[in-house]
Amino acid sequence: MSLKAVFFDIDDTLYSTTEFADKARRLAVEAMRRRGLRLPAEHILRELVEVISEFSSNYEHHFDKLLLRLPRRAFDGVNPAILVASGVQAYHDAKFRLLQPYPDVALALRRLARTDLVRGIITAGLEVKQADKLLRLGLYPCFTPTAIFISDQIGISKPNPKLFQRACDEVGLKPEETMYVGDHPVQDVDAANALGMVTVRVRRGKHALDQGRTRPTHELKNFKELLTILRKDFNVRA
Amino acid sequence: MSLKAVFFDIDDTLYSTTEFADKARRLAVEAMRRRGLRLPAEHILRELVEVISEFSSNYEHHFDKLLLRLPRRAFDGVNPAILVASGVQAYHDAKFRLLQPYPDVALALRRLARTDLVRGIITAGLEVKQADKLLRLGLYPCFTPTAIFISDQIGISKPNPKLFQRACDEVGLKPEETMYVGDHPVQDVDAANALGMVTVRVRRGKHALDQGRTRPTHELKNFKELLTILRKDFNVRA
Repeated sequence: MSLKAVFFDIDDTLYSTTEFADKARRLAVEAMRRRGLRLPAEHILRELVEVISEFSSNYEHHFDKLLLRLPRRAFDGVNPAILVASGVQAYHDAKFRLLQPYPDVALALRRLARTDLVRGIITAGLEVKQADKLLRLGLYPCFTPTAIFISDQIGISKPNPKLFQRACDEVGLKPEETMYVGDHPVQDVDAANALGMVTVRVRRGKHALDQGRTRPTHELKNFKELLTILRKDFNVRA
Repeated sequence: MSLKAVFFDIDDTLYSTTEFADKARRLAVEAMRRRGLRLPAEHILRELVEVISEFSSNYEHHFDKLLLRLPRRAFDGVNPAILVASGVQAYHDAKFRLLQPYPDVALALRRLARTDLVRGIITAGLEVKQADKLLRLGLYPCFTPTAIFISDQIGISKPNPKLFQRACDEVGLKPEETMYVGDHPVQDVDAANALGMVTVRVRRGKHALDQGRTRPTHELKNFKELLTILRKDFNVRA
């Protein structure tokens, strides 16, 4: 059966989420210190990472919670709203300046965009936040506009295979005619395997060493290898 | 009695809120059209302005509501999250690039910052949003850090004179030792007059023609005139 579509995960697949988040948090902490938060950067950063893990990365008020945890004397004489705003600002501005795909990803997607493969997204997350990433990464033009599926818009999330089934249904293809490329052995590989999609695990980012229940059809380190697989196994000339 | 503090309003006093909002909304609409929203810009803009007036300017989901109001066929084949994200992004990026004070304001505040007057803010709004404006305008360093009062942090809003009283109390001054500079004849001038502050109305922005109950102590068109008043009437050499 020939391959008709390739779906991609976003986080730690199209760009290094881990590396970006680390840089952006450091910039936020530095901005707060410049505005009068008198504590060592590493101390503030450790608290911030704890807030994010306790309240989830999609929570809206990380920096407010961060200040609640720090001793009031550490920012005596400074309006806390100024500190929160400077942290949020630095984080947002980092998205503007620093968010970029892995270089091999940008190259491979631009080449895939010239083929007649459907190029889609299946991602778990908040709809506007995930859409924002695609746009800021500059990759949105490489995708098929009708093939972008975000869990929050569908009411089904990873690792439920129904999310992947829904994406296949919407583009009118059988799972075995589609490929899924992701970094997570359980959320991505096991879930898409359950449906019979061709699965590709990209082994990088924070889940590079995690173990899943099933094996991916292919495993690779970068998207240059993806183009090779597509050419050799599926006769896709990108 | 000598003047010890000058408090300022933010919106349409330190910068042209009206002009900025208009530019930012147009950029947002253009970004949405570039991503596939197929309607005339003026049509989309009109709906957006209605959303903002119906749901308030501090509501968080203007662009989602905007899409709900537009015919689905106008963005058939495009994921609505992409459109919302591109609108929000363009608006945020406009803050980064376009938010700037009236030139005479920046000049006057930098000069006031060299005096021993307390330079404060009394503003009605959301705390982080108002703090964000001060930082992005580049004016924050001109103010006394302990003299920034945002209604949302205090539980009292304009035009309640208690908000102004609280600001005076916090900096340890009598109202008659302080000046309030704002654009709004009711929210700013009437409210601060009720307390006996020296009031200055800057006649520009969307309330330039509105009428209040009371007259300001001074009325002016720009902050150059403010420096003149401070020098002539209060012997402040800025």
